Amino acid sequence: MPQAVVLELIGEKPPLYPAKYAHGLFFTLLSRIDPLLAEKLHMAPRKPFTLAPLSERRGVLLLRLTTLDDGLFAPFLRVLLEMAPEGFPLGDTPYRLARVLATGEGHPLAGAASWEELKKAPRRERATLRFLTPTVFATSKPGGRTRYTPLPDPRLIVGSLLDKWQAHSPFPYNPRVEAALRELFALDIEVAGFRNLRFRRVQAGKGFFPGFTGEVTLRLWSESLEAQEALGRLHTLAFFSGVGAKTPYGMGLALPVVEIPRS
Amino acid sequence: MPQAVVLELIGEKPPLYPAKYAHGLFFTLLSRIDPLLAEKLHMAPRKPFTLAPLSERRGVLLLRLTTLDDGLFAPFLRVLLEMAPEGFPLGDTPYRLARVLATGEGHPLAGAASWEELKKAPRRERATLRFLTPTVFATSKPGGRTRYTPLPDPRLIVGSLLDKWQAHSPFPYNPRVEAALRELFALDIEVAGFRNLRFRRVQAGKGFFPGFTGEVTLRLWSESLEAQEALGRLHTLAFFSGVGAKTPYGMGLALPVVEIPRS
Repeated sequence: MPQAVVLELIGEKPPLYPAKYAHGLFFTLLSRIDPLLAEKLHMAPRKPFTLAPLSERRGVLLLRLTTLDDGLFAPFLRVLLEMAPEGFPLGDTPYRLARVLATGEGHPLAGAASWEELKKAPRRERATLRFLTPTVFATSKPGGRTRYTPLPDPRLIVGSLLDKWQAHSPFPYNPRVEAALRELFALDIEVAGFRNLRFRRVQAGKGFFPGFTGEVTLRLWSESLEAQEALGRLHTLAFFSGVGAKTPYGMGLALPVVEIPRS
Repeated sequence: MPQAVVLELIGEKPPLYPAKYAHGLFFTLLSRIDPLLAEKLHMAPRKPFTLAPLSERRGVLLLRLTTLDDGLFAPFLRVLLEMAPEGFPLGDTPYRLARVLATGEGHPLAGAASWEELKKAPRRERATLRFLTPTVFATSKPGGRTRYTPLPDPRLIVGSLLDKWQAHSPFPYNPRVEAALRELFALDIEVAGFRNLRFRRVQAGKGFFPGFTGEVTLRLWSESLEAQEALGRLHTLAFFSGVGAKTPYGMGLALPVVEIPRS
């Protein structure tokens, strides 16, 4: 079941590179539970989790963890709680776990939904996402080039979410339907509006990456019920999967907005 | 010679749809000079001019006209000056021509450059454009669809400028080089940064179109001197040609920025 929790961590000084340290901590803890799984995940091109520092104020660091893999969340939370009394380091600073916020009441960015619920998400012709951390799309090009797109390109947003759905959902589309959906999205999806769009370059893992934040509304012109259903699912998935590249390093944190968007 | 002039028009009340009325006036005046040319231009898919209302304050309307076609500017200006004493209507409001600002000293958005000068523009690896009016790209898709992209997609920006260069310059690239340039731009150009990006829907001709304004810096990674040279030319051309769709209706007014951009 896709899960999003917000960990409230308390330390003496703010960590220098919270996203990087959190990533390291995640793998350290995971190695304790299951060294083989940690190794496998470390190598996986598509990680079934996202990890984003939300804020740091007066020694309280909020760290958001989402998991898409059922086998990951429960044991990870267990080792986290087991270690809580002694604490754990983020970089060179010891932190202790004060609270785990696991529901929307506890924190607006926490919650859980079953894959069955995501599958049953209502159809959508419009979908608004609020990108809370810098978001970027990486595209492999011929000759070993990787190019970065720090823009809310509708085809890349939906394509990234469909990649994540296909990789992690127990209900992936079959290859024929998947290809048809990608074709429809390429033809029939537009940006209906955006606001508060900002550019920022951030560190994520070994390098710096460009990204955008802000709110974007997509409009699907297709009358295909299957495409509208897929847009509904992908919009809902975004809360747990994030969007684009480097989501295990804090990038691409996207909040699906369900209020009626301005056009 | 590509020309940009700012016309200072004085009227009693602000026009309701300045871009639309200005477009109408342009063709009315053109019909007086050369009815056949007016008809031909009206039908042309790529118009060799742009027309944008810049501002309206206290009865003074600034209207920017650029021409890419040598045969268009001189006669048009002549009929404009001839008619100036009696005035001409913008929609239902009579206006008189107070001044024609034709140089950069007169107005930062006015000036002229020969095609030879544009051809000799310095090579660029980075190019910054400030989009002063909403800018949009129209893409034809199968099945008669037209989709609009109100985002500063680097490939679309450079592709649009290359289209305009090919259509209007006396020095178009030959088809082989043009294809190679498009390929290189698709592979090797990225958004290096943007600021003040805003979304706005505006009326342009018969419909409303989405668009973006703001400043965008492109980065060309290619080491091809030909591609860098082309980027330099296209960046300089943007001042006269505008960028994207509906430039004869005030959209896509882009100012090339030559100061060293922030990344």
